Amino acid sequence: MKPITVGILGAGRIGQVHGNNLLRMAGIELKAVTDPYVDFASWPPAPVATGKDPGLILDDDAIEAVLVCSPTPTHADLTERAAKMGKHVFCEKPIDLDPVRIRRTLAVVEECGVNLQVGFNRRFDPTFARVRRAVTDGDVGEIHLIKITSRDPEAPPADYVRDSGGIFLDMTIHDFDMVRYLTGSEVEEVYAAGAVLIDPAIGEAGDVDTAVTTLKMTNGAIAVIENSRQAVYGYDQRVEVFGSGGSAEAGNETPNRVTVSSLDGVRSDKPLYFFLERYQASFVAELESFFASIRDDEPTPVGGMDGLMSVLVGLAASKSLAENRPVQVEGT
Amino acid sequence: MKPITVGILGAGRIGQVHGNNLLRMAGIELKAVTDPYVDFASWPPAPVATGKDPGLILDDDAIEAVLVCSPTPTHADLTERAAKMGKHVFCEKPIDLDPVRIRRTLAVVEECGVNLQVGFNRRFDPTFARVRRAVTDGDVGEIHLIKITSRDPEAPPADYVRDSGGIFLDMTIHDFDMVRYLTGSEVEEVYAAGAVLIDPAIGEAGDVDTAVTTLKMTNGAIAVIENSRQAVYGYDQRVEVFGSGGSAEAGNETPNRVTVSSLDGVRSDKPLYFFLERYQASFVAELESFFASIRDDEPTPVGGMDGLMSVLVGLAASKSLAENRPVQVEGT
Amino acid sequence: MKPITVGILGAGRIGQVHGNNLLRMAGIELKAVTDPYVDFASWPPAPVATGKDPGLILDDDAIEAVLVCSPTPTHADLTERAAKMGKHVFCEKPIDLDPVRIRRTLAVVEECGVNLQVGFNRRFDPTFARVRRAVTDGDVGEIHLIKITSRDPEAPPADYVRDSGGIFLDMTIHDFDMVRYLTGSEVEEVYAAGAVLIDPAIGEAGDVDTAVTTLKMTNGAIAVIENSRQAVYGYDQRVEVFGSGGSAEAGNETPNRVTVSSLDGVRSDKPLYFFLERYQASFVAELESFFASIRDDEPTPVGGMDGLMSVLVGLAASKSLAENRPVQVEGT
Amino acid sequence: MKPITVGILGAGRIGQVHGNNLLRMAGIELKAVTDPYVDFASWPPAPVATGKDPGLILDDDAIEAVLVCSPTPTHADLTERAAKMGKHVFCEKPIDLDPVRIRRTLAVVEECGVNLQVGFNRRFDPTFARVRRAVTDGDVGEIHLIKITSRDPEAPPADYVRDSGGIFLDMTIHDFDMVRYLTGSEVEEVYAAGAVLIDPAIGEAGDVDTAVTTLKMTNGAIAVIENSRQAVYGYDQRVEVFGSGGSAEAGNETPNRVTVSSLDGVRSDKPLYFFLERYQASFVAELESFFASIRDDEPTPVGGMDGLMSVLVGLAASKSLAENRPVQVEGT
Repeated sequence: MKPITVGILGAGRIGQVHGNNLLRMAGIELKAVTDPYVDFASWPPAPVATGKDPGLILDDDAIEAVLVCSPTPTHADLTERAAKMGKHVFCEKPIDLDPVRIRRTLAVVEECGVNLQVGFNRRFDPTFARVRRAVTDGDVGEIHLIKITSRDPEAPPADYVRDSGGIFLDMTIHDFDMVRYLTGSEVEEVYAAGAVLIDPAIGEAGDVDTAVTTLKMTNGAIAVIENSRQAVYGYDQRVEVFGSGGSAEAGNETPNRVTVSSLDGVRSDKPLYFFLERYQASFVAELESFFASIRDDEPTPVGGMDGLMSVLVGLAASKSLAENRPVQVEGT
Repeated sequence: MKPITVGILGAGRIGQVHGNNLLRMAGIELKAVTDPYVDFASWPPAPVATGKDPGLILDDDAIEAVLVCSPTPTHADLTERAAKMGKHVFCEKPIDLDPVRIRRTLAVVEECGVNLQVGFNRRFDPTFARVRRAVTDGDVGEIHLIKITSRDPEAPPADYVRDSGGIFLDMTIHDFDMVRYLTGSEVEEVYAAGAVLIDPAIGEAGDVDTAVTTLKMTNGAIAVIENSRQAVYGYDQRVEVFGSGGSAEAGNETPNRVTVSSLDGVRSDKPLYFFLERYQASFVAELESFFASIRDDEPTPVGGMDGLMSVLVGLAASKSLAENRPVQVEGT
Repeated sequence: MKPITVGILGAGRIGQVHGNNLLRMAGIELKAVTDPYVDFASWPPAPVATGKDPGLILDDDAIEAVLVCSPTPTHADLTERAAKMGKHVFCEKPIDLDPVRIRRTLAVVEECGVNLQVGFNRRFDPTFARVRRAVTDGDVGEIHLIKITSRDPEAPPADYVRDSGGIFLDMTIHDFDMVRYLTGSEVEEVYAAGAVLIDPAIGEAGDVDTAVTTLKMTNGAIAVIENSRQAVYGYDQRVEVFGSGGSAEAGNETPNRVTVSSLDGVRSDKPLYFFLERYQASFVAELESFFASIRDDEPTPVGGMDGLMSVLVGLAASKSLAENRPVQVEGT
Repeated sequence: MKPITVGILGAGRIGQVHGNNLLRMAGIELKAVTDPYVDFASWPPAPVATGKDPGLILDDDAIEAVLVCSPTPTHADLTERAAKMGKHVFCEKPIDLDPVRIRRTLAVVEECGVNLQVGFNRRFDPTFARVRRAVTDGDVGEIHLIKITSRDPEAPPADYVRDSGGIFLDMTIHDFDMVRYLTGSEVEEVYAAGAVLIDPAIGEAGDVDTAVTTLKMTNGAIAVIENSRQAVYGYDQRVEVFGSGGSAEAGNETPNRVTVSSLDGVRSDKPLYFFLERYQASFVAELESFFASIRDDEPTPVGGMDGLMSVLVGLAASKSLAENRPVQVEGT
């Protein structure tokens, strides 16, 4: 079987994660990586081509698929350019912070007839996928409540926060997508409560670091997402779906299954540190799924509308926080 | 040591639970139980006096303490009458659904110089008390988030719901008190989302059966309470307090610690069925605490203001649900 | 219903535990407690009669049932005397350390036609009873392996050890009974490995403080019991039954269900401290079961043969340890 | 850095597992795979050379390291031949079933000055390595007891059993090594109890399918290993080390962290199916460790003596079972 040829636009942390996964993947050939700000001294290994100009990838007819791993403001443009060159696109989230821009990009992608997948990797996590299966198997019955706990191990610097679009578009956006994935339903109305409790600099940057967001879903269920930018014990990523048939609940992953009992009590190790550790398998699985959709000429499992909807919910949450009132999600 | 003499006003379910606990308690003498609607054929055992008229207890100078276990609309009146007769009062929650009435009752109690304890039994549960200790010991650090899951095993009949004051004053009121207890802070603002997902008759009775309530606390923390009137797997009672130092989390109590592994997976038994099973120990402990406060002439651990505040929060939640907007709690 | 009248022979720790449970039990009247070495200043409460002479109980025709809670060397004699006076007997384990003596006592009991129950309280623990139910329900299938972990929180003083009959007759005897209870099968052959690892004084007293005992059962299954006289984190009491259908496993009971997550890891409290805390409910349940067998004129759930068999297994284990070879259990 | 060149002798299941891991490993070049009974149609991928004759690897001076993955009877011979050609050897366990033969092989390896690692992969499992760390960190204190539960999900066919050397040399050998690894101590004496409870054909093949093995260690501790050839709920791999400071206990790995609560109880998925799933990471880690020892010119972490000792313990266990008595381990 001829391998699928791939280029990566952007060689930052997530670009390298994807790149290393590609290098170990059967049936995939990583041909080039570009990044205007990277020197490529030690990575990627030969014979992968490297350069500063995305044209190295976009203009190479031999490259079939592109991973957009550059900064958010460039996502929409690069996605459109790649689509116009007939390349399938895997784009990190969010496609853009402006729904108008996202819609335009989706229109271009559709016109070009290429596949687009958005990087909501958590859908491919075995634990969350198992929760989803409990829903689709009927174990949960009709869904009544969804609860997500999502806490990072360390707050980002205020500089990062300033350009991030705010906690709802930067961090909670994954949880919005998770609610949509687990329920198969859309968000209708959002109420967000937020506070600055961890780092005053985050407040000065115009954002909050602690938030509770309530979502009313079109199927009647209520979801609640609780976020913190800093859980000192590590990455806290739990979900629960509750309904007429019962509950499916996902706990944290830990580095081992050891408990130590001593005079002081019973101890176990902290959860896996952060997303690179916790979601390692899901980063591989989302790409495998993307390439499978190319091979089988089928829709990707996380499409452009998924990219758009989570941004619409994020914007509604930001507005709710600013105006301290429930806000309808645009278009629902 | 002379025993404390006690009378119980109201011989319904909770009155009998308290009565049976009293009968086994050292240093306590249950002298009389009254209830206008009960025949007292088989309970309580001799030589406890029984009758329909509360005067049998209120007018008996030999009775030092009274348990008000009658229907809610009679709580305030009976509490006042007992206080005026110089008796210490343990009153089931809520004192009344009207804050004006509660304040009047508290004034009478204060004037009479008797002890008043409100029946927020969950504060005396060993598991929740352990979470509180994690807070006071400093393990949690500065509190950022409080999460409560509170689900009943079976929805009450619509008739009950109609006179209950609504889910927030009937069910969530315990959770409001728990948030106050765990944080040592007051509720400032409430936003409640609700839905009728379990029994349409509850909706027709003007109530919801599923709710998510967000509370902004005076110390800056955010609390979220999630309620359901029916979890088919039993009584689901969990709390988590999260802060700068970490998290303290209470899981459900189960009837045993057995897991069965078979071809089908790994199974354990459901949580304890309902509040009588789950909070058995706390019903004893709250009364012991009440009697200790009488013996030591000290304030009760759950006083009149605790009874008032939880009603004020409940009313704000009801209003928030009705008007779909965040509502300030009266007096904060 | 006329209450069952009861006397307690022996007012040490376990006698007081049983006595206090009796005092709170419906349908039971504790009439007298005797102990030659106790002054009875503060316990039991009036109107229970007290005295040094067991005759106060044995000669009182109004007493129907007797609890033998005295030191082991007096168990057989007091059981026989009570039986001859027509009283039902609840006897703490072991009946005696000498099987010949036990058999004689059982013969007397049988001749007198009274009920005899031996104090293997753990059979009445809700968690172990649940494991047994998994066996009788068929969840475990045909039994292949039984594993018991049984560790005390503190080693007894060497003086106690010297008169205890050794670890197998003092401590493991409960586990031997548990194996018989869980499997419904008898022990055929025993191999015991032991060591002195905790307190050299225990070795000087002729005993071991750490042991692993392998039992071959008549139904073909193999059981293994692992004992330590000192687990610094508290009383460790776990069992597992494994078979063709799967496994049923009982974990430790803890004082609460709280986990605290912090920089240092995830912690929970130690298991309940020792047998009085861990088996509180089972001490009540075994007596209720004894009295029910009297009321219903039915055999007790833990009879004389159960008392005999566990001693026979204990003696085989002691011999195996001494001779470092597998030893057949007498009579199998 | 020049890659280490590797050849694999034997292309059965474990040979392919190692081969696929090598293909993804940085700094390693898999040059050739040989197996006299395999056709190599689809594996390994080009440009790896393949053939029936081990000489293809042994005579290739460009190959530095060899993995011996052939059937057990050929291990010693191939290891010696490779060592004589100056190649470092990773040999699957056991080196041989005859200690005399193993000693001769170890002498050849030593004379040739090459590195030898034996395939006790479980030492490299993160969970068991964490238990070992609890020991070396002093959390467990002085070791008193070691408990291993080791159950396969499916019994092997009787044909396999016949040539396996018996359960102790085929299955328990891993557990013997685990006891040595966790304690850092040697086995002095063994007592094994066994039974045929799963498949009569295993009994007819002269083996048992259920076993409990007690080990007395040179440091005074007692270990107990409990084996079953068939746990219907999957691969059951647990260990506990208990000592003066407390206990470190490793539970099973599961495919996800989801619990489903319903009317029937609380369920989670079965443990990972078998060794390929459960020990996936450890197979990679043991090879990385082997190659690191080559690069750094240091001893391998699991050397020839480890291969010898576990066989000596296995032979003592077989003898103990046959003679129903404790047996000294040769050379201790």
